[in-house]
Amino acid sequence: MTTVGVGMVGHAFMGRAHSQAWRSVGPFFGPPLTPVMTALAGRSAERAGAAAASLGWASVETDWKELLRRDDVQLVDICTPGDGHAEIAVAALDAGKHVLCEKPLANSVAEAEAMAAAADRARERGVRSMVGFNYRRVPAVTLARRLVAEGRIGTVRHIRAQYLQDWLADPEAQFNWRMDRDRAGSGALGDIASHIVDTAQFITGHTLTEVSATLETFVPERPAPGGGTAQVTVDDAALFIGRTDAGALASFEATRAATGRKNALRIEVSGSSGALYFDLESLNELWFHDVAEDAATAGFRRIVVTEPDHPYMGRWWPPGHMLGYEHTFTHQMADLLTAIADGTDPRPSFADGLQIQRVLAAVADSAASRSWVDVEGSD
Amino acid sequence: MTTVGVGMVGHAFMGRAHSQAWRSVGPFFGPPLTPVMTALAGRSAERAGAAAASLGWASVETDWKELLRRDDVQLVDICTPGDGHAEIAVAALDAGKHVLCEKPLANSVAEAEAMAAAADRARERGVRSMVGFNYRRVPAVTLARRLVAEGRIGTVRHIRAQYLQDWLADPEAQFNWRMDRDRAGSGALGDIASHIVDTAQFITGHTLTEVSATLETFVPERPAPGGGTAQVTVDDAALFIGRTDAGALASFEATRAATGRKNALRIEVSGSSGALYFDLESLNELWFHDVAEDAATAGFRRIVVTEPDHPYMGRWWPPGHMLGYEHTFTHQMADLLTAIADGTDPRPSFADGLQIQRVLAAVADSAASRSWVDVEGSD
Amino acid sequence: MTTVGVGMVGHAFMGRAHSQAWRSVGPFFGPPLTPVMTALAGRSAERAGAAAASLGWASVETDWKELLRRDDVQLVDICTPGDGHAEIAVAALDAGKHVLCEKPLANSVAEAEAMAAAADRARERGVRSMVGFNYRRVPAVTLARRLVAEGRIGTVRHIRAQYLQDWLADPEAQFNWRMDRDRAGSGALGDIASHIVDTAQFITGHTLTEVSATLETFVPERPAPGGGTAQVTVDDAALFIGRTDAGALASFEATRAATGRKNALRIEVSGSSGALYFDLESLNELWFHDVAEDAATAGFRRIVVTEPDHPYMGRWWPPGHMLGYEHTFTHQMADLLTAIADGTDPRPSFADGLQIQRVLAAVADSAASRSWVDVEGSD
Amino acid sequence: MTTVGVGMVGHAFMGRAHSQAWRSVGPFFGPPLTPVMTALAGRSAERAGAAAASLGWASVETDWKELLRRDDVQLVDICTPGDGHAEIAVAALDAGKHVLCEKPLANSVAEAEAMAAAADRARERGVRSMVGFNYRRVPAVTLARRLVAEGRIGTVRHIRAQYLQDWLADPEAQFNWRMDRDRAGSGALGDIASHIVDTAQFITGHTLTEVSATLETFVPERPAPGGGTAQVTVDDAALFIGRTDAGALASFEATRAATGRKNALRIEVSGSSGALYFDLESLNELWFHDVAEDAATAGFRRIVVTEPDHPYMGRWWPPGHMLGYEHTFTHQMADLLTAIADGTDPRPSFADGLQIQRVLAAVADSAASRSWVDVEGSD
Repeated sequence: MTTVGVGMVGHAFMGRAHSQAWRSVGPFFGPPLTPVMTALAGRSAERAGAAAASLGWASVETDWKELLRRDDVQLVDICTPGDGHAEIAVAALDAGKHVLCEKPLANSVAEAEAMAAAADRARERGVRSMVGFNYRRVPAVTLARRLVAEGRIGTVRHIRAQYLQDWLADPEAQFNWRMDRDRAGSGALGDIASHIVDTAQFITGHTLTEVSATLETFVPERPAPGGGTAQVTVDDAALFIGRTDAGALASFEATRAATGRKNALRIEVSGSSGALYFDLESLNELWFHDVAEDAATAGFRRIVVTEPDHPYMGRWWPPGHMLGYEHTFTHQMADLLTAIADGTDPRPSFADGLQIQRVLAAVADSAASRSWVDVEGSD
Repeated sequence: MTTVGVGMVGHAFMGRAHSQAWRSVGPFFGPPLTPVMTALAGRSAERAGAAAASLGWASVETDWKELLRRDDVQLVDICTPGDGHAEIAVAALDAGKHVLCEKPLANSVAEAEAMAAAADRARERGVRSMVGFNYRRVPAVTLARRLVAEGRIGTVRHIRAQYLQDWLADPEAQFNWRMDRDRAGSGALGDIASHIVDTAQFITGHTLTEVSATLETFVPERPAPGGGTAQVTVDDAALFIGRTDAGALASFEATRAATGRKNALRIEVSGSSGALYFDLESLNELWFHDVAEDAATAGFRRIVVTEPDHPYMGRWWPPGHMLGYEHTFTHQMADLLTAIADGTDPRPSFADGLQIQRVLAAVADSAASRSWVDVEGSD
Repeated sequence: MTTVGVGMVGHAFMGRAHSQAWRSVGPFFGPPLTPVMTALAGRSAERAGAAAASLGWASVETDWKELLRRDDVQLVDICTPGDGHAEIAVAALDAGKHVLCEKPLANSVAEAEAMAAAADRARERGVRSMVGFNYRRVPAVTLARRLVAEGRIGTVRHIRAQYLQDWLADPEAQFNWRMDRDRAGSGALGDIASHIVDTAQFITGHTLTEVSATLETFVPERPAPGGGTAQVTVDDAALFIGRTDAGALASFEATRAATGRKNALRIEVSGSSGALYFDLESLNELWFHDVAEDAATAGFRRIVVTEPDHPYMGRWWPPGHMLGYEHTFTHQMADLLTAIADGTDPRPSFADGLQIQRVLAAVADSAASRSWVDVEGSD
Repeated sequence: MTTVGVGMVGHAFMGRAHSQAWRSVGPFFGPPLTPVMTALAGRSAERAGAAAASLGWASVETDWKELLRRDDVQLVDICTPGDGHAEIAVAALDAGKHVLCEKPLANSVAEAEAMAAAADRARERGVRSMVGFNYRRVPAVTLARRLVAEGRIGTVRHIRAQYLQDWLADPEAQFNWRMDRDRAGSGALGDIASHIVDTAQFITGHTLTEVSATLETFVPERPAPGGGTAQVTVDDAALFIGRTDAGALASFEATRAATGRKNALRIEVSGSSGALYFDLESLNELWFHDVAEDAATAGFRRIVVTEPDHPYMGRWWPPGHMLGYEHTFTHQMADLLTAIADGTDPRPSFADGLQIQRVLAAVADSAASRSWVDVEGSD
């Protein structure tokens, strides 16, 4: 049994989710490479030590650069805020470590370009990289892609995608790093619009070529954790329409002010001969309409995506037994480990992450210029 | 154009619903016989006159027997409480008038037997009769029956039917005739369990052969309209399980104490190769599962029952335009008028109504005897 | 009892719907003015005569101008395609007839301006006018407006509105006048985007001030009814984002190519302290979220809008008994008749219709110019 | 940090689920006792060894009795078919090991009584026992219980519970031990009716006192794994009605023949002032109706049970991030470890398991005798 030593940077929300996935991927997926939870890096020795003990990491580093020097670490898993991604990822790849980097890939196109270039260099040496758009690996989303690829909905004409959250609807909700442009790059745009752009492109196989957008910050000043107030320097909401390389119309809304919607990543795709609908708040379901049905019984079907031949599901439980949020990370780790073992490039690649960054940049530019903006690199 | 003069007895809730149906059946269904809203019978000249003016009836009688003497009345429509059904229906049929009688057919099996016998006598003279289980004619319910008859769900194994209302959940809700055994015969049992028994049998083509039941009155005394309190002499809820002549298991619940459920007639039928689900609170929808689907995309389909080839729908609006409650009565009138014109017997017949009465009687007997009871007349 | 003679122009889909409403408004709403279905105008004497007989109109005219000369017609109900609205409405108002005009008000802003001016002139003589955005009068929609007006969702921040149909998803669907710019003015834009603009503004009380849009015709050529093909000169889909006078972000999509969606007018409004959701395919339901709920039990509530104190519902059936599509027209007639009797101006007025026409024009301009466009007349 | 050594017996479906829970409970719940996955017992050294390696158990025993002799095992987790429960549990308790036993507690009342007696003996020595009705610990179910206990739905009047699966709808589905009375005790009755009885009693706080039931085996003979056919000696479906000690009516249906329903444990509870609804196929949701709402906005609320103050949820992810099936086992382990550390008795106890066994026995007796049967031990 071959193993791969993992070093993870960061141990907040994402670090906890990744840790559970590293623990679970072995028992459920029996991947060709067995991950070893070797080291956790965090700035505070105390906090990182407590996290490592709780999450199951064998050792602690207070400087992520130490992970790059360790022979027992072959894979670096980056779970920091976006402003740290580029530096860590480039250094790790150049040091010959495989890299899994949380999304969005970076806080700017320039950073993402540097990362994609590093990934290209690394690939030539057999070093792999992947960006963590985990929602691709919700079984219902993977199934949606499969159905589109099989032609089950015909030519895609409409994409309507929303990512609705409400944790900033309340003006009294406290300021944190996610509202700070320097740390997070942007607000709802980078954090959650990036997810729906990736998911939409993943399901349809289309890429966005042009967008018209508007951004809004409903609450420009918020209570600071230490008292007083802090300026919100990112968007609360991003709204845009666009067109794809294959002629579809698309609409996107990402917001943290949709009262009552907790984590509603919803996407509906209308094709010439069928349609699909997914809502992350009902993550084990995919709705599918097939115009080939006889007219008397046609209708959107609620597919409970827990059958053995649904993506990833053969590894879990009998039909009707539901998966949750963190399973998506386990799937991600399984696919990454398989790709490393097989010597293939996992997706979404850093190039994929860069393309999404370019969409986000086009959205920001369009909002600023009040005009349609082409996505860089699209034809 | 041949016409049929209609005389209606009663002008409360059911009278209003029937009147709208008599007004609407011509424009939408163009039936072979055109109904003329000839006369309305009600005990109070004043109230009946006001109702006739509002509802569109051409004349008024204060004694329903006068309707039987009028040559311009060929059809008597009985919308009174159950204790009046038998006398009026038998007299009308014997007087050679076609009869539409609201459900349940009667307050007792004996009355229902007399009515069915009168219907038999009348049939020989070409006089038609029908009992008003209007929910058969919700297009989604009619479609459900069609799908079962076509074998789309295979052998029916399970029927689960509920009729949930909540207007008596509140102990302070006022007493009315529907809580008085002398007027209503029974409570939830006759009023709404009768509907689910009819709907279940109609959809599946099965008949109930034996039942085990329990009845309950949660609030035995209620405020009387004039002050003081009145004894509730009927059931608030009826709960029973049963078996059908074709080997299915069935469960039924009818209650007026299901808080938050307003008019939830729900029925799910599980067959060996498919299943159906209907809820009257979403009356334009039928859910259908077909095991012949490929496993990856099988699921319950939400059929929006508004397509031209869905039952009755070609007469109304384009796809996606919804029907409401009272449309079921228009369908009933259309089918009744067609049957009269064609010289055929409309369904549900008085014999069908009698069979349901026997099921209700078996339920009451079972609740009293705490044992399984055979439905009279079933093999 | 005072009556008002109604003359209706057109007897296709809308004419049938209006006729049912004129027949039903008396029995259910007992309005202060009783409508008399006096005359139906249609170009073909034969077809108009058949329609009048079926729909209940007492006489027929083959020239709508005759309606204006008849003393027994006091109200003209315009149910023709959009290209006829302006001429008929202006003439009727100038002839002193009250006018109900189907939506959209006209095929151009210029026509709509002339109509609004005629309405202004008429108003001074006590002559009333109304445009038929009937979906305002779905009880759930009217309730939504009431809840917003009462402050139940706080400051409105997001409007997301879709009107999804699928009757043109199939490239083989036949050409008709609704695909002809000369007759219909536009495609999905005027036909159904107009509805969601009106509904969104009605519910929120906001008006759209600027938009960025794109239009698309997926199938530019279709089989013609008589053989051969015809050019589709209107949009299949209209997609736009916008901002309102009160600072909300709005997204709109209207399409006839959303496979499997029959008549899905959906609108979600997110406010600072609550949210609302409505889908016309479930027209008796309104979903409401209130942040004032305790956190453990907060959630979107499915309000079954059939209670006596819900808008219009006291006039129909007991709780839980559903309404359908055409009831909205009955509500419209009731409100119009009441306004005429009371000497007040009914809404939506021709000025409201003109404002919506200006939004549609801004959408078309934006799609052509690929830039944000201000809605004329907004501040 | 104090630890508890766990020895698990069995490593099929339940063993895999329990293993994931033992791995996860530490990181997420930080329980007062840290579980150590010490030993796995299975008859085949080879299969048990492979399972131990995959699932993370440190050692293997081929005889469960060895676990009782090991000092490093303080807790025995029984994941075998029902026919092994009694012997193992009694021996383990008598050996001073805490016991977690999968449900149903046993295959007969006699076995369950012996186990409850052993639990009583053990309790006096501080040894704890628990039966694994894991669905109590779905956060939505625990929340439902809390709302009932707080009086949020008033007096419970109706319980309607269903557990619908479809894996035996197909007559060609293969025979396995779950269809063999000797191994499984019963079919749908013990396997899944036991779950809805426990869940219903847990949520309401009521206990069933009498039942009337029927059982059915739709497919009496099935293909055997090795070829030929095998007799099905258990029920495919169990249907019963009942009454509770506090005056509620209850209906239960458990079936493996409900086509299209994969794992639909559904329960609706109607109280005098509110109602609750849960469906395991949407396991992160609880529906709640509160009659105290103003009439215009009352309705069933879809509570997304992922808020920090919902049961167990503070330990997992931010709001809107879903849990899956196996999380219920993690909750179970957390509560069990806490109880052991605190020296209190965890629930459901073996006495609770025995009471459920008595309900199941009453159901079987009632089905055989065709009469109402009292549940033993209820007053």
